[in-house]
Amino acid sequence: MKILVSNIGSTSFKFRLFDIPACRMAGRSDGVEKELASGGADRIGDTGGVLAWATGDGEQTSQKRDFANHGQAVRFVLDALIESGLLASTGDLDAVAFKTIMGGDCRPVTFVDEDVLAKMEYFFPIAPAHNPPYVAAMRMFAEILDGTPLVAAFETGFHRTIPARRTHYAVPLEWFERYGIRRYGFHGASHRYIATRISQIAPQAKRIVSCHLGGSSSLCGIRDGKSVCTSMGLSPQSGVPQSTRAGDFDPFALKLLADRAGMDTPAALEALGSASGLAAISGTGGDMRDIRQAAENGDERAKLTIDMFVTAVRDYLGAFLVELAGADAIVFTGGIGQHNAWLRSAVCDGMDFAGIKLDEAKNESSDGECRVEADGSTSQIWVIPTNEELIVARQAAELLGEKQ
Amino acid sequence: MKILVSNIGSTSFKFRLFDIPACRMAGRSDGVEKELASGGADRIGDTGGVLAWATGDGEQTSQKRDFANHGQAVRFVLDALIESGLLASTGDLDAVAFKTIMGGDCRPVTFVDEDVLAKMEYFFPIAPAHNPPYVAAMRMFAEILDGTPLVAAFETGFHRTIPARRTHYAVPLEWFERYGIRRYGFHGASHRYIATRISQIAPQAKRIVSCHLGGSSSLCGIRDGKSVCTSMGLSPQSGVPQSTRAGDFDPFALKLLADRAGMDTPAALEALGSASGLAAISGTGGDMRDIRQAAENGDERAKLTIDMFVTAVRDYLGAFLVELAGADAIVFTGGIGQHNAWLRSAVCDGMDFAGIKLDEAKNESSDGECRVEADGSTSQIWVIPTNEELIVARQAAELLGEKQ
Repeated sequence: MKILVSNIGSTSFKFRLFDIPACRMAGRSDGVEKELASGGADRIGDTGGVLAWATGDGEQTSQKRDFANHGQAVRFVLDALIESGLLASTGDLDAVAFKTIMGGDCRPVTFVDEDVLAKMEYFFPIAPAHNPPYVAAMRMFAEILDGTPLVAAFETGFHRTIPARRTHYAVPLEWFERYGIRRYGFHGASHRYIATRISQIAPQAKRIVSCHLGGSSSLCGIRDGKSVCTSMGLSPQSGVPQSTRAGDFDPFALKLLADRAGMDTPAALEALGSASGLAAISGTGGDMRDIRQAAENGDERAKLTIDMFVTAVRDYLGAFLVELAGADAIVFTGGIGQHNAWLRSAVCDGMDFAGIKLDEAKNESSDGECRVEADGSTSQIWVIPTNEELIVARQAAELLGEKQ
Repeated sequence: MKILVSNIGSTSFKFRLFDIPACRMAGRSDGVEKELASGGADRIGDTGGVLAWATGDGEQTSQKRDFANHGQAVRFVLDALIESGLLASTGDLDAVAFKTIMGGDCRPVTFVDEDVLAKMEYFFPIAPAHNPPYVAAMRMFAEILDGTPLVAAFETGFHRTIPARRTHYAVPLEWFERYGIRRYGFHGASHRYIATRISQIAPQAKRIVSCHLGGSSSLCGIRDGKSVCTSMGLSPQSGVPQSTRAGDFDPFALKLLADRAGMDTPAALEALGSASGLAAISGTGGDMRDIRQAAENGDERAKLTIDMFVTAVRDYLGAFLVELAGADAIVFTGGIGQHNAWLRSAVCDGMDFAGIKLDEAKNESSDGECRVEADGSTSQIWVIPTNEELIVARQAAELLGEKQ
């Protein structure tokens, strides 16, 4: 079955088209999955855009195109997939799936309907960068693809197994019961992929700390394949510092900002959600590659930014080691986690007290999926490229299976 | 020299009177310190109050008295101390010292003047339960004791050694530079006492996690006698859940409360500061003794409250173990930390992965200052009654010494 996983950015549309074997609909994982194509359109709403994509066999295509809006970009992509023969028609798509962020008490994987969209809209205030574009995209796809099932796979879904002692904040119970104020956790597709992948390549590892470090980052403690703790809470702005989002922050600062700076709560939260994080501290943008470069050139703010990020990651790593009573595997994934040996080394520094030790040579030469712990380390240490879209495609296939 | 340490509650006034040897003014600690008296007045502003106090030799006095206001209670206490001969006159007091909470960039220990009071007033929005009564008390003492030095010893002072990577939030730098928005940490007197005490009784222990658990709680990582990390941040409402204060919380909830519940930021912060914490979850008040009792009787909310508190303490303990690359000593202090073997056992559960192991029998029978780790544990585990007022009295004496 053919499932398109769609990722809508503010000026971009990215996709991956999967052929998921029908056995997945029955919950079995023994079939062969195939990525048929992946790519996207950029500079939407501007001129000078490019539609670039590649087939799963490696054939690459790139066309200059102007995209007036997201709808036009999506139509161009679907036309290109049909022209290439990967799709017979739009009706050949079994589903379009979305790695959605925040739906409160929505089913973790669900067909998109007005109720789902309403629940996503309810949480606009706490996921302002994520929920609005997804809701708009889903409405657009519903219009373009008359009748093709749309599937929302929420990033919070994997964390449904976290115990109540970790999901509750110590606030009036009414806030939880009436307004859905609790810790949800995010990056569920990535952490689920890591849990699944470790079960294949290191089946003895039952206690895992998954470190998804990228433009947005979170850690997750996994026991027996299930999430038991994660660093993000109510909103995707919480946890370790993100590229431009603050991470954990004391709400009482909002009163100080109001009284002393005349800044109201919406303005302060806007700053916390888009003008904070690594970018705010570094002063050189939110991209860790640039920050690392600046730090190596002696920039003090860049050095501080890296130290803050590493400290925050280590804090959650330490907390989750205690939660799991030690880890059988520590996994680094995400753009920052996968591609930066220096960062993995900094995160694992001084962990001998817990028997955890990186092999610096293996770490330096790591490439793709590999193990980088030293001989005798009590925890395996893995670098694993994540595959969030594959998880979403699988979940969509399983949902279609349930429907039958 | 005679130093009165004063503690003002909303309807109470507590004091401890110390005789601190003059050598402390020169920074030496070889003299003999003596507590001359301790006690207090309650039900201030109401009827049926009691003035109760004891001399350092154990002689106890209790008088029924109505106190119209705090000033009257203070005057009664001073009169009683003079009548008993412990003070020749109010002029016999070398200083009155206060364990103050929040003064931003004030000197950690300082004589109280209008500048100090103004800095404390600046932070009323983030320390609403603490700073206003202290400022009022200091003004009152200045009026009652014409010319006796008043000393503020800020709870944040011990944490001045925490590195920048931990004091900064990942927010616009301007918020730090212009408005003092940073992590400060609190309970400095208690954590300093623990650091000092461990240096006497276990001088080999250089890496300490101090767990001050009580009506208000925080953890502190100490290396070579200096604070390097602590669980409280900008406000005393942050960190682990407190008796009626929330602990760590996601500020984006404030937008949701505003949009969905019509609750503005001041109202939400009021609830976070006084109607949250252990009390909000348990529904049986914020006293851990009552919560434990209810949990033992099968109350599910009480059980959840205990589990949330233990989880939060363990999260910070794990984080600080990583920060310190392991601990030579873990210390429990504060009312909850000192008096509850079951809690220490729950906090230390499953720490074998780090070589840390409690001796359950020693823990159960602990009394006063004692060690409770099992043979072979890589960390010592201590129970130590804290003595915050003694630290404050010492700091006041040292400040008087500087002045000379």
